[in-house]
Amino acid sequence: MLSFDRKLDDLATLALRVGVNLQPGQRLLLLGPIEAADLMRRVATKAYDLGAPYVYALYLDEQISLIRAQHSAEDALDEFPEAHRDLIHTMVERGDAYLRIGGSDPDLMSPADPQRVATMVRSQRRVMRPVSDMVQRSHMPWSIVDYAVPAWAAKVFPELPAEQALERLWDAIFAACRVDAGDPIAAWERHLEQLSHASEALNGHAFSALHLRAPGTDLRVGLPETHVWESGGQHAACNGAHFVANLPTEEVFTAPHAQLVSGTVSASKPLSYQGQLIEGFSLTFQDGAVVDFAAERGEAVLKALLEIDEGARRLGELALVPHSSPISQTGLLFFNTLFDENAACHLALGRAYETTFKDGTSRPLEELIREGFNQSLTHVDFMFGSAALDIDGEKASGALVPVMRKGEWAL
Amino acid sequence: MLSFDRKLDDLATLALRVGVNLQPGQRLLLLGPIEAADLMRRVATKAYDLGAPYVYALYLDEQISLIRAQHSAEDALDEFPEAHRDLIHTMVERGDAYLRIGGSDPDLMSPADPQRVATMVRSQRRVMRPVSDMVQRSHMPWSIVDYAVPAWAAKVFPELPAEQALERLWDAIFAACRVDAGDPIAAWERHLEQLSHASEALNGHAFSALHLRAPGTDLRVGLPETHVWESGGQHAACNGAHFVANLPTEEVFTAPHAQLVSGTVSASKPLSYQGQLIEGFSLTFQDGAVVDFAAERGEAVLKALLEIDEGARRLGELALVPHSSPISQTGLLFFNTLFDENAACHLALGRAYETTFKDGTSRPLEELIREGFNQSLTHVDFMFGSAALDIDGEKASGALVPVMRKGEWAL
Repeated sequence: MLSFDRKLDDLATLALRVGVNLQPGQRLLLLGPIEAADLMRRVATKAYDLGAPYVYALYLDEQISLIRAQHSAEDALDEFPEAHRDLIHTMVERGDAYLRIGGSDPDLMSPADPQRVATMVRSQRRVMRPVSDMVQRSHMPWSIVDYAVPAWAAKVFPELPAEQALERLWDAIFAACRVDAGDPIAAWERHLEQLSHASEALNGHAFSALHLRAPGTDLRVGLPETHVWESGGQHAACNGAHFVANLPTEEVFTAPHAQLVSGTVSASKPLSYQGQLIEGFSLTFQDGAVVDFAAERGEAVLKALLEIDEGARRLGELALVPHSSPISQTGLLFFNTLFDENAACHLALGRAYETTFKDGTSRPLEELIREGFNQSLTHVDFMFGSAALDIDGEKASGALVPVMRKGEWAL
Repeated sequence: MLSFDRKLDDLATLALRVGVNLQPGQRLLLLGPIEAADLMRRVATKAYDLGAPYVYALYLDEQISLIRAQHSAEDALDEFPEAHRDLIHTMVERGDAYLRIGGSDPDLMSPADPQRVATMVRSQRRVMRPVSDMVQRSHMPWSIVDYAVPAWAAKVFPELPAEQALERLWDAIFAACRVDAGDPIAAWERHLEQLSHASEALNGHAFSALHLRAPGTDLRVGLPETHVWESGGQHAACNGAHFVANLPTEEVFTAPHAQLVSGTVSASKPLSYQGQLIEGFSLTFQDGAVVDFAAERGEAVLKALLEIDEGARRLGELALVPHSSPISQTGLLFFNTLFDENAACHLALGRAYETTFKDGTSRPLEELIREGFNQSLTHVDFMFGSAALDIDGEKASGALVPVMRKGEWAL
């Protein structure tokens, strides 16, 4: 069995070589929580060893966001520093690789007023828009990998002592990222190839819609004529490098048509949104927009999310993950989108990815919008997949083709 | 006796109310090491409570600087991100208060090649110049306060177990900052008034030079005709607020004339410079410039410092601190400039402060340079004070007036 030290080193290597695929001479912009200093330093070391001229390490402290949510004057919450945006934007625009180390307390913001948090989030998204545009358009290679911070581990394993909880969460991260058996680079080459089989099969069918059916869910998701199913990696516009934006990734995904979604979908897992939990919720769509919603817990948070802008009430992503995926098999609820989204089929409220439209990154956005692209300041995944999920693909002729049965591929 | 918690809270309050004198509606730029998250969060909380619309917290990780010094390609060391400079510059230019939490491992950079470190430092100083100009000109209120990080505590108290060393260092910080006896704001009002008595007396004499004499030291420091002795606080140009740039501060200081220094000075304490120690060193001046130097340890580091630029070989500050000052009385060597400079008389190689010239912040720099102002990318303090130091002031008439005897005020 590999040591923790070796596995954390391998995770750093994986994030650089498979995640952002750092090239010699390319700078690295590295963001992560202060708790993740150990991984930040390993990544910085390996980035310099790979020939990065500079590693700009930016540490985040989510406690300071909570402090702001609780202590700032009301009228000052609608502010976010443009100078921070300019810093990040300058770096990603010139093609620096952008690696984000995640991992946070799922309940962080629960002591704060959801409306105040929503104001903070909205102003941040508004100011950071030019950066998120570059991310969505794959201008530069970017990737996210998670770090097991204690508050997150305590949430996933509430019954265990702190140290054991942390150890279990690390085991889950290492397993999901395939760094627990040596040579993660080779393991990821095999994995990415398997994922591409599914996306190629879906692209071959060129469905006009998918029908999702499960207890509490009966949703027809229209697809743009120019939709493309993506999986695993993408190519960065700035340097053509193949990068993998999420570590782990198990999904095959495309864009729903922003105007052609109708019916009801029920979430199969809680959603941790900006440090606040939304549980037991469902959304009803008509002509692409949410017209009704309900939640057993966090309904005010869900309401604030849907009110960010017009596009926050429409869909920007549909992703398929078999129920037998390794992360799903852990049986754990991670309260963390990067993990939970790769354990179950999911939809995203908010902005679509240009890469899920044919030649999407090289065509004007107005053209994509006419084809069904959803515009928004936000992009929030929520899970609806389960062992009870059936999906049919609808061809232009009206013929139905089984895509998933009982949560597994039926193609 | 006050609890640690209370004292750390008081230190945060002191840094905001006496240090940068934060005004309602003023933003705060807060820099500090990741180890100081506890103090960073307390400061952020109190800043919002005092009415700051935004606190921008920027965490520094000195380990990542060491990693760069050891792993970067040689030809990439002469780079520093302009985008980082622009971020800080935007904030300080508009008059945000600038609070720096210090505290670092005095030996941090010792595993690295001093020439590589010097290249890094030089490029950083070159790029950050517009920011350091604003600091030196007191454009905005700024302040530095230190945090007891474990590596620093271990260096000051090498004979103690880690936890005790940290406790002792905290005690020294709290005592020096006068937060160990309740009501630090009132204690600082009294202290600043006492310091101003000394600076007023020195200004009254309008000396043309000071003669410093101690074992290994015989130096004549010419003073510009327009020199001003400063102490404790200053007023920020942007909002007129009175701020105290160093917590603690015990010094009364002015600018030497960049061309009129001659003789030899021997350091009375080691100098911790960029994570590297210089010990047992002396400098010989002629016409204001260092013409000879020697060090028992770290001579290569001293050489690299003197070679930063022309101004690094000349003096920018002369500061007087009685040997009986509370920090000196601890008998400790802190390996930290903020503390050691306030325990002993010191000089600085490098850039002078505009505020130590009559109307210095409102006159063109060229004018000040003609009067003896020293220009440089650097500003590094070193200590020469001791119980054996005598200082005489030289009047324009040539008459000598005792200023210090055996390290104490003789005015």
